Amino acid sequence: MQLQLTSPLDMHLHLREGAMLDLVAPLSARDFAGAVVMPNLVPPVDNLERLAAYTAAVRQATQDHPFAPYMTLFFREYDQATLEAARPHIIGMKLYPEGVTTNSAGGVRDLAAIAPTLELMQHLGIPLLVHGESHGFVLDREAEFLPVYDRLARQFPRLTIVMEHITTAAALDLLDQHPNLYATVTLHHLLITLDDVAGGLLQPHLFCKPIAKRPEDRAALRAAALRAHPKLMFGSDSAPHPLNRKEAAGCAAGVFSAPVILPLLAEFFADHDALPHLQTFVSDTARSVYGVNPPQTTITLAREPWTVPEAYGNVVPFYAGRTLPWQVVERAYA
Amino acid sequence: MQLQLTSPLDMHLHLREGAMLDLVAPLSARDFAGAVVMPNLVPPVDNLERLAAYTAAVRQATQDHPFAPYMTLFFREYDQATLEAARPHIIGMKLYPEGVTTNSAGGVRDLAAIAPTLELMQHLGIPLLVHGESHGFVLDREAEFLPVYDRLARQFPRLTIVMEHITTAAALDLLDQHPNLYATVTLHHLLITLDDVAGGLLQPHLFCKPIAKRPEDRAALRAAALRAHPKLMFGSDSAPHPLNRKEAAGCAAGVFSAPVILPLLAEFFADHDALPHLQTFVSDTARSVYGVNPPQTTITLAREPWTVPEAYGNVVPFYAGRTLPWQVVERAYA
Repeated sequence: MQLQLTSPLDMHLHLREGAMLDLVAPLSARDFAGAVVMPNLVPPVDNLERLAAYTAAVRQATQDHPFAPYMTLFFREYDQATLEAARPHIIGMKLYPEGVTTNSAGGVRDLAAIAPTLELMQHLGIPLLVHGESHGFVLDREAEFLPVYDRLARQFPRLTIVMEHITTAAALDLLDQHPNLYATVTLHHLLITLDDVAGGLLQPHLFCKPIAKRPEDRAALRAAALRAHPKLMFGSDSAPHPLNRKEAAGCAAGVFSAPVILPLLAEFFADHDALPHLQTFVSDTARSVYGVNPPQTTITLAREPWTVPEAYGNVVPFYAGRTLPWQVVERAYA
Repeated sequence: MQLQLTSPLDMHLHLREGAMLDLVAPLSARDFAGAVVMPNLVPPVDNLERLAAYTAAVRQATQDHPFAPYMTLFFREYDQATLEAARPHIIGMKLYPEGVTTNSAGGVRDLAAIAPTLELMQHLGIPLLVHGESHGFVLDREAEFLPVYDRLARQFPRLTIVMEHITTAAALDLLDQHPNLYATVTLHHLLITLDDVAGGLLQPHLFCKPIAKRPEDRAALRAAALRAHPKLMFGSDSAPHPLNRKEAAGCAAGVFSAPVILPLLAEFFADHDALPHLQTFVSDTARSVYGVNPPQTTITLAREPWTVPEAYGNVVPFYAGRTLPWQVVERAYA
């Protein structure tokens, strides 16, 4: 049994820099025709010079494959000249909750402070990508942030707002309430719950932010993905950390899923008799939401067992060492 | 400022075997006049011969201090002769539902099937100590188990039942509904929530079963401990694992709190103006519930800063490397 996907897209990806970039970027670029590249480096990608340099580094690291890096700027207050200069080079701006907390009147003040930049983004057609978590109790952070999305969507009705890596049924409910609100969902939030992270032995390689939630939340995300909800895009949030930052006294948040995404998505959609919706979920929806036109690629998967490596370099992948029923058997680049 | 405690008791303690027993047992025995010693070894302490050998090993490891090891048998179905023979040597029987925590693979599968043994225990006056968690979603396990406590307390009204290491406000509510129901609470569940485990970096040394819960649950536990709830005993559930079983791809559940318990309890009760209740919480309640008469010891703590070691042997303690305002300054044994 085979499956062909046309130009898969990963609408939320961490590629890092330096040696890590060189290690992980090809693993995304060989399977995906394009990806939204996150700007949360140290220091962040928050100016045009850094953006140009990082874009060049990503292109260099992915040069062996036809791959469109959809770059993002780290959200801060920018003036019109900067945004206009950036616009041809970015797909959107990524907002992290620092400075936009929902917890207090302070959150409202912060939102007011960034309104001019949001106004410009709306005017210029630059999407806003948001890591939507409050500073509250770890399991409540996404739910507590939803009113911020609600307010932003009302206040800037022509601004495209993407709720990144949603993990709750409540976020899906909100998704349907505003035409300018979209979302990405990761592979791992479709597959695991907090039980997989902490229900037996604690699994640092499954630890991520937002943290995996309850079975009911996963069920809602699964249902939406499997029917290719028209506003829900695939975004892996694949986020590599070296082994010694994961199996450690303080374990960094991030699941490195890049090399196993398409086999696991094929298995998941096949197991739920939803394979006809996978192309929409993993590519078409993003093309339509963002209006992008990625390189033409054809990725063929087959139902042939494949064992995930225990590590790629010093990074342990999602499902390390597990044997998966599907694998990528051919990558055809036009 | 000083504080004297008379014969502190730890009513839930894991001492392990072999080199680990020799490492950790003195750290409890120097501060505590007695402790309830858990039987979940490999294989479990579930027969009289093993009980005698383990008791001897614990006595050997704690011989430098006056210390009463209150031994337990691993719950399974026992006949009357065995229970009668065991009774002088144990403080109770510890019931694990199968598979819910460290070394619980031989635990109970069918609670209805164990009624005859519970009947005998009630008849013989042997308390039942329970790790009360279902096999459900990790955050719901204790709440889902509460109906079992409720049923057992009604069905065996003269059986002393101890809900071990409770973590939820709901468990405290149940505590007041049956005169034969008691509970222990750990130090770490008074101090941390899931936010401390997984809200920032993931902290394997704070990972335990039952997992730390929500702020509201901690608040309820704190209130009950600080007023020395008459049915709530201190039980540390101190559970050492070697470093390489904690900072690992699969991290074992357990917080090693033994060496820091009294300093942290002193700080916690002092910070909440509840020092006068600490003696009751950490000793008197257990003496009255179990009718034990531990060795007479006097542990003096002073408000003098003390830095917790980064490790004891190959075990990382709770609050490793942190400087605590209180420390034990004198241990007087009668």
